[in-house]
Amino acid sequence: MRIVVDAMGSDAHPAPEVSGAVMAARESGDTIVLVGDAAQVEPLLAQEDTRGLSIEVVHTGEFISMDDHPAEAARTKKNSPMHIGTEMLRTGQADAFVSAGNTGGTLAVATLHTLKRIPGVLRPALMMVFYMRRHYTVLCDIGANTDCKAEWLVQFALMSQIYSKRVLKVANPRVGLLANGEEDIKGNDLTRRAAELICQTDLNFVGNVEPKEMLLMNKVDVMVHDGFSGNVLIKTYGAVAELMFELIKAEAEASRRIGAGLLLAKPGLRSLKHQIDPMEFGGALLAGVNGVVVVSHGRSNALGIKSAILRQARAAVEADMVAAIREGVAQYAAPPESAAV
Amino acid sequence: MRIVVDAMGSDAHPAPEVSGAVMAARESGDTIVLVGDAAQVEPLLAQEDTRGLSIEVVHTGEFISMDDHPAEAARTKKNSPMHIGTEMLRTGQADAFVSAGNTGGTLAVATLHTLKRIPGVLRPALMMVFYMRRHYTVLCDIGANTDCKAEWLVQFALMSQIYSKRVLKVANPRVGLLANGEEDIKGNDLTRRAAELICQTDLNFVGNVEPKEMLLMNKVDVMVHDGFSGNVLIKTYGAVAELMFELIKAEAEASRRIGAGLLLAKPGLRSLKHQIDPMEFGGALLAGVNGVVVVSHGRSNALGIKSAILRQARAAVEADMVAAIREGVAQYAAPPESAAV
Repeated sequence: MRIVVDAMGSDAHPAPEVSGAVMAARESGDTIVLVGDAAQVEPLLAQEDTRGLSIEVVHTGEFISMDDHPAEAARTKKNSPMHIGTEMLRTGQADAFVSAGNTGGTLAVATLHTLKRIPGVLRPALMMVFYMRRHYTVLCDIGANTDCKAEWLVQFALMSQIYSKRVLKVANPRVGLLANGEEDIKGNDLTRRAAELICQTDLNFVGNVEPKEMLLMNKVDVMVHDGFSGNVLIKTYGAVAELMFELIKAEAEASRRIGAGLLLAKPGLRSLKHQIDPMEFGGALLAGVNGVVVVSHGRSNALGIKSAILRQARAAVEADMVAAIREGVAQYAAPPESAAV
Repeated sequence: MRIVVDAMGSDAHPAPEVSGAVMAARESGDTIVLVGDAAQVEPLLAQEDTRGLSIEVVHTGEFISMDDHPAEAARTKKNSPMHIGTEMLRTGQADAFVSAGNTGGTLAVATLHTLKRIPGVLRPALMMVFYMRRHYTVLCDIGANTDCKAEWLVQFALMSQIYSKRVLKVANPRVGLLANGEEDIKGNDLTRRAAELICQTDLNFVGNVEPKEMLLMNKVDVMVHDGFSGNVLIKTYGAVAELMFELIKAEAEASRRIGAGLLLAKPGLRSLKHQIDPMEFGGALLAGVNGVVVVSHGRSNALGIKSAILRQARAAVEADMVAAIREGVAQYAAPPESAAV
């Protein structure tokens, strides 16, 4: 397998990308192609032990930064790693692309300029796998589409269900809609309309789902939402987890006895930090474009990049997600009324 | 001060209401009026030490339960504690009303049947005070309006700013809009339009705010959102906090050494639990109706009811919030263009 990595994406680029690529190449035996400023990438790569690994560098001097306006940069910076990387997917030179850079930039490049949408897909969406206490939940959309139509949410549900089945091996994924209450009358105009439409499909729909039912009770395998509220959900998750660790630290500093206890419990707290860290998930899949594109967090470290490559990009390629979404969407392309027959 | 409490609201009613009322009456010297089934309330009250306290019971045999459809129950169950309590505010027989019952029911009764909207208020909204690390943030709307217009969000900002100034004594409250990124181009159609409108007022607007900026960085004193995403935010907050404690417990059980450390650190963890518990905030104010109405969590215990009475209801009456909102809204009643001059 050949996986292309944007070397200039993360906040601390290109160090996390280079180390993450080396780790991923060693663990998988895959070829990793780093796209970025060779003058920065190659010295770092030279410091790593790359014997027997397949790592290539493709130079480009143009980048889309976090400050760039996504659509504008996608149109004008044609030699960015995002353009070069996704173009390699389009032409069959590589199997997947990973970037920790400007999310909107990657979305715009892949959706509008290089890979484009899978026929029938209304809107590509960001799909994230949340893993907690031995349960996987696929969340979609976590930020690609802040204003959604109900029909799009139905497709997010469908694409996520395919992922849950093919990648996570869930036999009959339970699909829920994020809402402010379980009852049918809860939700907003969008979710109530989406619920009507999802009921007309053969998806295993369990209705409205509150955050605690997803986070604490494993009530669903797929949770669907617009990209605005989905983004609020995962960012609040990350912020509260961070807040808790800051409060624990403050308690440890406030009393010698509590500090001693927490020191003794440190391996447990470290394990907790791993379990709760959103970085461990390794990024989100841009579902619905003609290629495997993974968007990783700007704050990704080497482990985050490695996870994005192995846990997200590689898994999606192996499960042939693009073909599966193409088939799934084609099957539902008829109006839901007739598809339900 | 006379504060009316719905005795039949919480999941475990009327025990939390009765104990909470006794605690609040003792601490404040206020008169607390419990409205509910006297046959259930009076025996519980007889078990409490109420010497020197002013606690009254008003009997009603009709209730709006969690299973009732809010608007329908508000129309048909005219003798519910919500009707009787808010009617006492309307006629000047009491100063504030607290209920841990069906939120939609309380909203419908207060907004449509008894107190009604303050003139000029487009939509009443639920306002919650979040307290963390010596900083107060007013959140609005946390669930009354799942589909909002930009103009409503401007009023939510205004009402919350008034609360921040008058109740929390913040001199010049910083107002932010919950969004999926700080940059102006982030947000959804609703928040971008609301941002334009808020910029035309003299509110101290700081722009888009992500969950971490509010939860970890104290970047705002007021955070505004539609009731759907605001609800997702606070419910995710509560669920993650609960999840963390479950994970800590699992770590303690998995290893003797970690268990011993956490046992030693228990006072710190207990303090942490208090700091993070959403119950401690004591409920949300229904801002924009002609009276002080506080909605408390269905899972409230006696402490939750006491907090709702003292920290929310009492504080809003003392700050004369209803009159302040009336004046504030009247001042902005002219189109924002002319008001900004």
